[in-house]
Amino acid sequence: MQKGRILLSVTGFNPQRWQELLSADREVVLAPDGPNDPTITYAVVWKQRPNLLAGLPNLRAIFSIGAGVDHIFTDPTVPDVPIVRVVAENLTQYMTEYVTWRVLDHHRQGMLYRTQQRKKIWHEPPQRPANDISVGIMGLGQLGRAAAQALLALGFRVNGWGRTDRPMAGVTTFSGDGGLIPFLNATDILVVLLPLTPATHGIVNYGLLRELRRRNGLGGAVLINAGRGRLQRDADILRALEDGTLKEASLDVFEVEPLPRTSPLWAHPRVFVTPHAAATSDPAHLAAPMLEQMDAYERGEPLHNLVNREAGY
Amino acid sequence: MQKGRILLSVTGFNPQRWQELLSADREVVLAPDGPNDPTITYAVVWKQRPNLLAGLPNLRAIFSIGAGVDHIFTDPTVPDVPIVRVVAENLTQYMTEYVTWRVLDHHRQGMLYRTQQRKKIWHEPPQRPANDISVGIMGLGQLGRAAAQALLALGFRVNGWGRTDRPMAGVTTFSGDGGLIPFLNATDILVVLLPLTPATHGIVNYGLLRELRRRNGLGGAVLINAGRGRLQRDADILRALEDGTLKEASLDVFEVEPLPRTSPLWAHPRVFVTPHAAATSDPAHLAAPMLEQMDAYERGEPLHNLVNREAGY
Repeated sequence: MQKGRILLSVTGFNPQRWQELLSADREVVLAPDGPNDPTITYAVVWKQRPNLLAGLPNLRAIFSIGAGVDHIFTDPTVPDVPIVRVVAENLTQYMTEYVTWRVLDHHRQGMLYRTQQRKKIWHEPPQRPANDISVGIMGLGQLGRAAAQALLALGFRVNGWGRTDRPMAGVTTFSGDGGLIPFLNATDILVVLLPLTPATHGIVNYGLLRELRRRNGLGGAVLINAGRGRLQRDADILRALEDGTLKEASLDVFEVEPLPRTSPLWAHPRVFVTPHAAATSDPAHLAAPMLEQMDAYERGEPLHNLVNREAGY
Repeated sequence: MQKGRILLSVTGFNPQRWQELLSADREVVLAPDGPNDPTITYAVVWKQRPNLLAGLPNLRAIFSIGAGVDHIFTDPTVPDVPIVRVVAENLTQYMTEYVTWRVLDHHRQGMLYRTQQRKKIWHEPPQRPANDISVGIMGLGQLGRAAAQALLALGFRVNGWGRTDRPMAGVTTFSGDGGLIPFLNATDILVVLLPLTPATHGIVNYGLLRELRRRNGLGGAVLINAGRGRLQRDADILRALEDGTLKEASLDVFEVEPLPRTSPLWAHPRVFVTPHAAATSDPAHLAAPMLEQMDAYERGEPLHNLVNREAGY
């Protein structure tokens, strides 16, 4: 039997590499043969073209190229078929590296040392041990849990918050609306790894940042956002940096991406900017498992890493 | 029975905190009552005053305030009593943080991203996964092994080199003169945690750096020295940076400390300088175990973490 075709629809980057890799096992097209093309059985997407998927009669599943799936739901006509997120060891590992790197750079006072170096100042400021610092992770999914594990291994105290309670050894977990303030009140360094949903849109605002713990000698809390840009209010982060609520921030994502050259975040001396590069979906590691899932599904096996449509992630 | 007195002799910093903490259990003096003071049973030192220890008739052991002991042996008159180095979880943890931080900053291209940020450039360079990068640790003692463990947990490949072979799970170990070149040839990021001895003085020279692996796309090897400054030749590091042998370096130690303002290392765009602050001996965590060792020794128990006088560390 001929395998069904893959419709590849991405915006924002060149799909060529994905096209090459997926073509190893199935025919890949960048557009259907008309709006009701019956040969398309899977869609592989990143911010797919609106209305593209609505009419395909034999579409069996949609695969997101990234861990987040908010880009799929911006199109209200997305048909009610299973949606599969990418979960790759590779992606998880990159995110763990990024979070560990940024937590350590703030904890070990990288910004201060770089300033001292520019001025040729030989001075050792007081340094707290990791077990005196609480890192709070918002979002205890695959990525959050792996990051928590790495931080625990380095000796940090770790708090976690999620929509539902998901206990994890060594981590103090909080959940739901009622758990949010206590979670923030016990957190020195906030790591945001939430999915973007209507419920989390703009959640990292000034009010939330004000609830972070601010202890003597630490000079304010720290924010690290490696989730989605629209989880945060860029202007609120700037305000929090200005009034001492936040000491420093590492931001990989922004309300508008690429971050406009006019944004004051670029030049802020206590902000570290990366271009949504914390954890890149490397097609070389992701395409083959995706093709295997398609085959397995057609053999009657269940799909893994399914998106909960109601929760939006 | 009256407990013997402690002679505290440090240069380079104020001994007051040590004096306070050690005084909890024994009388502490900053100078003996004459060159043959019989009441001194222990010396706690950092770069002790020359000839100070030679004549003390009842000196039972010398305790170093830091993990390194080269500062003790600069005085050839040091008597032949056991020398104990500091081994503290706290110190090991700080060093593990520092090494992990610096490896991640080089691996995740922190210097490039900071340059891009200054120019407001939104660009994601290619990023290798950790399991494609080999970190080589010179010196597999307490500190080196803990750092290796943390790097393995993050997915890096880890090589280790030491004077004698000390196998470690997950680490490819090399040893002795014969193992040095193969070790360097297989290493992308070199972490130096060796003790300073006559055999290691100046070992990190241009010839050694030339043996590091330089692979396409990585732009040169990386050097991280958190051991001792006189292990390295500052001028050789600059030469290696200039000719592309080294891509970047993180240096916590220098041939002369504090690093002179005239050193070109301060302003080098691919060098990160910290003021011998990778792992600080925090007296609050070190004094009590030291006092306990003294009591245990007097009860007839063996001293731990003894220095091998012949090896010089």
